[in-house]
Amino acid sequence: MDPVNLIDKLTLFDDHWSPRVIAELNDYQVKLAKLKGDFVWHRHEDTDELFFVMKGELEIEFRDRSVVLGEGELIVVAKNVDHRPHAREECHVLLIEPRGVRNTGDAGGELTAQNDVWV
Amino acid sequence: MDPVNLIDKLTLFDDHWSPRVIAELNDYQVKLAKLKGDFVWHRHEDTDELFFVMKGELEIEFRDRSVVLGEGELIVVAKNVDHRPHAREECHVLLIEPRGVRNTGDAGGELTAQNDVWV
Repeated sequence: MDPVNLIDKLTLFDDHWSPRVIAELNDYQVKLAKLKGDFVWHRHEDTDELFFVMKGELEIEFRDRSVVLGEGELIVVAKNVDHRPHAREECHVLLIEPRGVRNTGDAGGELTAQNDVWV
Repeated sequence: MDPVNLIDKLTLFDDHWSPRVIAELNDYQVKLAKLKGDFVWHRHEDTDELFFVMKGELEIEFRDRSVVLGEGELIVVAKNVDHRPHAREECHVLLIEPRGVRNTGDAGGELTAQNDVWV
């Protein structure tokens, strides 16, 4: 039960689309990720998912529109909603979702990250 | 399902120890609060509680030690652990916990805030 410094944690990894766990809150996990380029279209059938942008800009496409989140902005993507994150330049995000959620949701594929990797 | 700008939201209220909901993630709520001075000793018997400091410094006393969180630092206070937040100068925090949690936990009293107040 010690303070976690997010900026310090972000210096400890460089790969993209590979979330690292930094804290747990009941059965939820708080993760950090560095994103760049296109992710895959996917949905999470059992859960909402929170994205909070710490640095840079994150675009999230939905089927009917897209949103752009700047630094200090968050969004909760509702469960079962198709979405595709995209970052033109590298951005740093904090994610919150229940333990065990697959990052690529129903889509799977090569961008599927290992779960429960702490930093 | 729109982006929420945390800095903008923080301009919309000024009172201390009175969290405002800015988003929901399944049955969890994301809240903002401005804190100054001493809170009461309390614990939450059913849940962990996440504090993320956005501005200023937050001290959290435990029975056997205390921690100081600066800007960009978070901590998860485990359920059933007595704690007392304290801020010498006003600080701004983001809180995450399940919907319906009483801010003063088992202690109650005059600092008990109304729940489900959105901003």
